[in-house]
Amino acid sequence: MAQRISVQKVDDPRVDDFRHLSTADRRPDRPGGRGFVIAEGTVVVRRLLASDYPVRALLGVARRIEELEPELAGVDVPAYVTSAELMAEIVGFHLNRGVLAVADRAPRSSAGEIVARARVLAVPEGVGDHENLGALFRNAAAFGLGGVLLGPGCSDPLYRRSVRVSMGNVLRVPFAPLEPWPAGLTSLKEKGFRVAALTPRADSVPLRELAADGGKIALLLGSEGPGLTEEALGAADVAVRVPMAEGVDSLNVATAAAVAFYELAGR
Amino acid sequence: MAQRISVQKVDDPRVDDFRHLSTADRRPDRPGGRGFVIAEGTVVVRRLLASDYPVRALLGVARRIEELEPELAGVDVPAYVTSAELMAEIVGFHLNRGVLAVADRAPRSSAGEIVARARVLAVPEGVGDHENLGALFRNAAAFGLGGVLLGPGCSDPLYRRSVRVSMGNVLRVPFAPLEPWPAGLTSLKEKGFRVAALTPRADSVPLRELAADGGKIALLLGSEGPGLTEEALGAADVAVRVPMAEGVDSLNVATAAAVAFYELAGR
Repeated sequence: MAQRISVQKVDDPRVDDFRHLSTADRRPDRPGGRGFVIAEGTVVVRRLLASDYPVRALLGVARRIEELEPELAGVDVPAYVTSAELMAEIVGFHLNRGVLAVADRAPRSSAGEIVARARVLAVPEGVGDHENLGALFRNAAAFGLGGVLLGPGCSDPLYRRSVRVSMGNVLRVPFAPLEPWPAGLTSLKEKGFRVAALTPRADSVPLRELAADGGKIALLLGSEGPGLTEEALGAADVAVRVPMAEGVDSLNVATAAAVAFYELAGR
Repeated sequence: MAQRISVQKVDDPRVDDFRHLSTADRRPDRPGGRGFVIAEGTVVVRRLLASDYPVRALLGVARRIEELEPELAGVDVPAYVTSAELMAEIVGFHLNRGVLAVADRAPRSSAGEIVARARVLAVPEGVGDHENLGALFRNAAAFGLGGVLLGPGCSDPLYRRSVRVSMGNVLRVPFAPLEPWPAGLTSLKEKGFRVAALTPRADSVPLRELAADGGKIALLLGSEGPGLTEEALGAADVAVRVPMAEGVDSLNVATAAAVAFYELAGR
């Protein structure tokens, strides 16, 4: 049972984990040099509590901590209760969602373990925007993808804003770096995956055709603007596209991914 | 041919249209009380120049104004050229995209005109988030929708942030309020549209089934969280869903819309 502890002073050292959160997820002093896992809001805090990340503490207003009662019954972490005003002062920005949880990073599945269990995988390359990467994980969860293998240039899925935009799904969808690059793509083929590059290029086939073929798919996704590198495109078995109206440049990468996940994994 | 005019002082009255842009699109002194149409960045400025909105002026750094040379050749508006620093001071926030254009609002197509030309329409209800509404327009453009009919509670598609997130597609995809509500939905049915409500409710049919039926579709889309009102659901002919993995709450409204547009309009 989580212990409820009232916090009444902004400089209470027991809530040091929650200070300066807009920069804390970049703290070089943390294991791995990448900082805590931070969950904001009851939905995401619930997902963090359900994950295998070791939760250190919660901080929230009374009403939000009460909402989490069922989930907190089974865990032994301090839940610091404070006012909305004091909470804003402690974390360094105004927070509407009223509850935060902080966890340590934890060892993740390897790429090999993810590949062994998956039928459809997302392989983003160069998706450096935290919100796009978070949205991609949310969409991967919605369509039941087996995991996300991160190519070079992707941001950290456990960065605070990615966790938030993903609605906590970065804590549920397994991910790992795919290394070395692009040779890792060849090893996916050896495991029976077709490597498909999502690209508007003229020689690409409509998604529906690829979906009709069935089988295991690893879907390469590039960032908006530059798109996939020639390296990645060259390693793909097939190029696929989301059919679009004339004269429209492109969809946001996470949105294009959602359409592809729907078509390839959502049946 | 647009006239290039160098601006060297922050208080130059010729660039008054560009001041305080973070609030200017709420100016009550403008016709209709809703302020200018503001385009940010070369892609969106191009779309504004190609639209029928009467452009008043551009403001930008030399490099960006030069990039717009071909589009500016055919128009008679002043293009104010300044430094990045002065531009930030004039508009009131730092602007990375280096060019802005301001236009007056203009009379739009009526709902009746849009309905007469469309096969697939989006009908958002209560989508008050500017970014979600902008993204919805971007996705509507990508899949060639015939237009967007705005139910109650939607934000203004021409608000600055919506214009930006839509990548300027609010300037291309026709839209109009659907009034009265929900009786306007009945008039859509009289015009041969099936009114389909996108909702995760248990009695909904998978999108693919609806798509296979063909015909004209008006797709009702509710906001994340509250979803569609009972009023809107009651007026629909059919409830449809994006099939999702177990235990995942929902997609972002614009993302769910993209999947639906792909399935219903993207063939």
